[in-house]
Amino acid sequence: MAAPAGEPPTHPGSFSAPIEDRYFEDYVPGAVHACGELAVTEEEIVEFARVYDPQPFHLDAEHAASGPFGGIVASGWHTAALMMRLFAAHYLSAVASLGSPGVDELRWPAPLRPGRTVSLRATVLSARRSRSRPDRGIVQTRAELFDDEGAAVLRVTVVNLLLCRHPQAAAE
Amino acid sequence: MAAPAGEPPTHPGSFSAPIEDRYFEDYVPGAVHACGELAVTEEEIVEFARVYDPQPFHLDAEHAASGPFGGIVASGWHTAALMMRLFAAHYLSAVASLGSPGVDELRWPAPLRPGRTVSLRATVLSARRSRSRPDRGIVQTRAELFDDEGAAVLRVTVVNLLLCRHPQAAAE
Repeated sequence: MAAPAGEPPTHPGSFSAPIEDRYFEDYVPGAVHACGELAVTEEEIVEFARVYDPQPFHLDAEHAASGPFGGIVASGWHTAALMMRLFAAHYLSAVASLGSPGVDELRWPAPLRPGRTVSLRATVLSARRSRSRPDRGIVQTRAELFDDEGAAVLRVTVVNLLLCRHPQAAAE
Repeated sequence: MAAPAGEPPTHPGSFSAPIEDRYFEDYVPGAVHACGELAVTEEEIVEFARVYDPQPFHLDAEHAASGPFGGIVASGWHTAALMMRLFAAHYLSAVASLGSPGVDELRWPAPLRPGRTVSLRATVLSARRSRSRPDRGIVQTRAELFDDEGAAVLRVTVVNLLLCRHPQAAAE
């Protein structure tokens, strides 16, 4: 059962360390984490689009019906923000995150439509200690957001900087 | 003078065709367009982060002061959404846009801090007619968002599908 829009998403991932005690060392290349789900309402899609991406096919059901998607679809940036919400709630450490320099190959393979429930799958692609700053590491993640019909609505490769649990290990 | 937060951004771009009559043919490779500016408030940064990216350095001024950025900074996804707002208001056709398959090399070179005003520069990298669907073309754009101190707070390469003004030209 999806959480209603506006509520925090449910379903924790499969990390051994809870998100409040998760560090660089907990991101193991090859690990695949189920990261919760979230229901998406038309009201939220329209509200986001009104502020940030007021194209007719994000805003107006009647106009959108004859548009390129045959109905309202979420702004791709809204879809990305929803991905981030699940990413922050279930995947990214709540104590060790130092931000992100960027992402690559962000794709919206299928449109996200109102009434769908999205779920996030995060795969750790790589994890390496920083050479210049031994208190942190760099984690590369493949994030994939699916709707409840199994369509991928977003794929992206994310880079995160994370504090290490054991900073001294870098000197070994 | 920046538009206040919550108001549409001002400053039109340098296209010859107005945004309501702009088509694929109006995107000329090499053209650089100034695409308006927008003031960013702490209230807006915190509100976006509360919903989509509730990391302490986006949410809580006191906590953020001792965090990795020395103060509150916007979620990178908020920065991207602000870019889209200017992109939609001044660059992307209001009548010919068919959506986007994705973006590449999204970077946040410097953090976006509250109270800054951002401006968008859009450079047309390439524009080609679709071979399979002669009513449309594919435009690749380098979008760069700067704050009022000249720091780049976002860079990204965007792909857009756009209807052609003269679809029949493809058959020539």
